Order: sequence, then structure tokens, then C-alpha cells
Amino acid sequence: MKIHRQKIEVESKTQIEFFDITSQVQEVIDASGIREGLLLVFAPHTTMALAINHNEPMLIQDFMRVLYKIVPMDDRYSHDLFELSKNSKSDGRSNGHSHCKSFLLGVSETLPIEKGKLLINPNQSIFAVEFDGSRKRDITIQVMGI
Amino acid sequence: MKIHRQKIEVESKTQIEFFDITSQVQEVIDASGIREGLLLVFAPHTTMALAINHNEPMLIQDFMRVLYKIVPMDDRYSHDLFELSKNSKSDGRSNGHSHCKSFLLGVSETLPIEKGKLLINPNQSIFAVEFDGSRKRDITIQVMGI
Amino acid sequence: MKIHRQKIEVESKTQIEFFDITSQVQEVIDASGIREGLLLVFAPHTTMALAINHNEPMLIQDFMRVLYKIVPMDDRYSHDLFELSKNSKSDGRSNGHSHCKSFLLGVSETLPIEKGKLLINPNQSIFAVEFDGSRKRDITIQVMGI
Repeated sequence: MKIHRQKIEVESKTQIEFFDITSQVQEVIDASGIREGLLLVFAPHTTMALAINHNEPMLIQDFMRVLYKIVPMDDRYSHDLFELSKNSKSDGRSNGHSHCKSFLLGVSETLPIEKGKLLINPNQSIFAVEFDGSRKRDITIQVMGI
Repeated sequence: MKIHRQKIEVESKTQIEFFDITSQVQEVIDASGIREGLLLVFAPHTTMALAINHNEPMLIQDFMRVLYKIVPMDDRYSHDLFELSKNSKSDGRSNGHSHCKSFLLGVSETLPIEKGKLLINPNQSIFAVEFDGSRKRDITIQVMGI
Repeated sequence: MKIHRQKIEVESKTQIEFFDITSQVQEVIDASGIREGLLLVFAPHTTMALAINHNEPMLIQDFMRVLYKIVPMDDRYSHDLFELSKNSKSDGRSNGHSHCKSFLLGVSETLPIEKGKLLINPNQSIFAVEFDGSRKRDITIQVMGI
């Protein structure tokens, strides 16, 4: 059994941003030489999430609206007071809502690999989602198999 | 290490349908001969999801109601306009809400396998959920282990 | 390839409780001797969930508030009538809302292991969440790798 791990980078320009990382993930699988196995995508960040669906811009807008409704930005989050109360290290962002969205959606995805290819529907894309941009972030891609 | 992969089929008759696929998943594990390892269930579809809980019909009704409240069918979804604007290929479904539910719940589940059996609580069932039925769909079951 | 599996216990004192199990998970990885691979944390319970984010008490309060808003405790859940209608075995809890929260958040998490360590951000914690305490529960930790 082989394990191959690589990081990819995404850089958000706006507060909430969806990155379609499907082709970058496939490149890591290609580099691994693994033909059959398991893909793990993991976001080592507390204001990011991973999600899978159709990369259709209007749909992404719809889904953002759903997330805004569930976790509104203009609610009060106690975490924001915590951030304000810290003297150092905090960058003063009111990002309680970003953490909650990450909590809800989750930071990892696992997918099957068959004959060296991600076994997904051509309409499915893997998204790394930033909820507290703009920032530079890395995403961990791990391939495990034979 | 061995990897075994199989597809199972589900066919929805109504718009939203929960399929308890637990026993079919166990059959795939049996067929694999794998005794210790990891199960991955993956839905290669953008209006489906996978979820785990008690197979109790009234609870499923409750959970459907929660999902309807979070992602109402009678809201306006921009994705539905996108679908309408396509001349070909679209089947004209207003399924923006279905995609959003799939986005939120996720399309995969991973579980432990011990002594050839799914290591779950007898009260837990694995559900493949269709949010845009009726349709025929396949679900990928992958067993990895020794 | 090696597979190592262990259970850890959590005991809730209140109805909803977040347990930071990150260090216990790391201890299981240490015990496994596995250096590179995949961690699976799985809750074999229908009113629990697993989630990952910053262990900051005010943030956890915020996230609990989000969950309460999505799945309110004071709504009517048909499952609660089902529980009441059973003569035996039921402990009479009105826990429809707890099941729905578990359904929504999910009962497993998968993470990468590098050089014998969980490859997570120091700000990330793995939480086992009980939605129907107080209870004693076990969580399954599985390490797979080389």
C-alpha cells in the first residue's frame, strides 16, 4: 500500500469564496501513481469547509444564500467578543459566523479512486470554501491505495 | 491490502426518498472477504446525499421537515433559471433546492469494519437520500482493508 | 498495512455537550505505532455527532445557538410520539430534535496522519457532541496505515 500527500494552495479575494479544486486533486492522484484507493481532502483551517456539488455559478449563489440564512452574518456571535478581548494575535475579524459555517459543513471529503481517476460524476466538483477571506490557505490532499 | 468496489441501485418513486441501504452495504462487505478495514459509501450524484441515523419512519419525516425549513422548495433558486435557459440536455426540473440539500448533507460516509461486519449500532442505518426523484441512481460502495 | 482500533468513553452531564477528544485520539494513534495513514473517528450512536473546529467556549455557544435555531427543541417532532407509544425499551425522552441534529452533522470524521501525528491545525479540535445527555457513550477510533 502507498500513501501520497501533497498540499495545494488557494487564495481568496473576497470574504466567501468557492474554489473548484477538482482538477488539482486529480493532478495529485496522477502524481501519486496510485490506481485504486481512497482520496482524502482535508482543510486544516477553522473558517473553511469542503463540499461537493455541481460547479454552476448560480447554484453556488443559491447555496451561499442558504448558508447566510442558516448562519446570518448580522447576528451577534459571542466568539467575536472573545476575539475583540484578546490583546494580541487576533486580527480583529468578526468571524464567528465563518467558524459556524465551517463547523456545520465539515472540513474533509473522502472519495473513491478507480483506475487512477477520481470516481465522480462529471457534474460533481470538489469545492474548498473560504468563509473568512481574503486569505491564503493550504488544503491537504492524501491518496492511499495500490 | 485489498480493495473491493461495487455499485448498488436505488430507484425513487417520489421526489424525496430515503433508502436504507445498510443490508446491501453489508452484502458488499461479505462479497469482499475483507475482515478489517474501512467502508466508503459515495453517491456520484448532485441531488443525492448520504446520512446515518435511526430508521424510524416518523423520525425521517421530522428530518425531512427540518431540511424543508432550511432549504424551502418554494424559495426562488437562481439555478432553476439557469436550467430553464438551457436549450438542450436540461430536463426542466426546478431542482435548485435539491442541489442545496445535497451540498449541505454531503455525498459520502466512512465507517469502520470489524471481523467482516460494519461496526455500527443496531439502531443506525445508512441512508442514500434522493432529493430530486423519481430517478434510477447508483451508489458506489468501496471496501478497503485486510 | 496495519489497522488499530480502540474505543474511548465520554460521559455527558447535561443535555447538549461538546467533548474535545483530540488528545485522546492522538493517544490512540501513538498506541497504534502507525506513522502515515488515515484516522477515522466514528460515533455509533443516533443522538451524537462529530465535528471539527476551534475549541473556544464562546464559539461553541454560538454554534449551539445555530443548531437550536435550525432544529428547535420546542418544535413538535413525530418521533417523540413514536417513543411515547412504545411500551417497553423507550426511556421516554423527547429526543426527536437530538436525532435530527445528529442526522444533519454526521457521525464520522476522517483525517490524515503524518509522521505519527494528526495533521491538523493547532486551532482545530475534534469534538464528539452529545445531543441527548446525560449519558455514557463510546466513540470508535480507527487508525489505518503504515
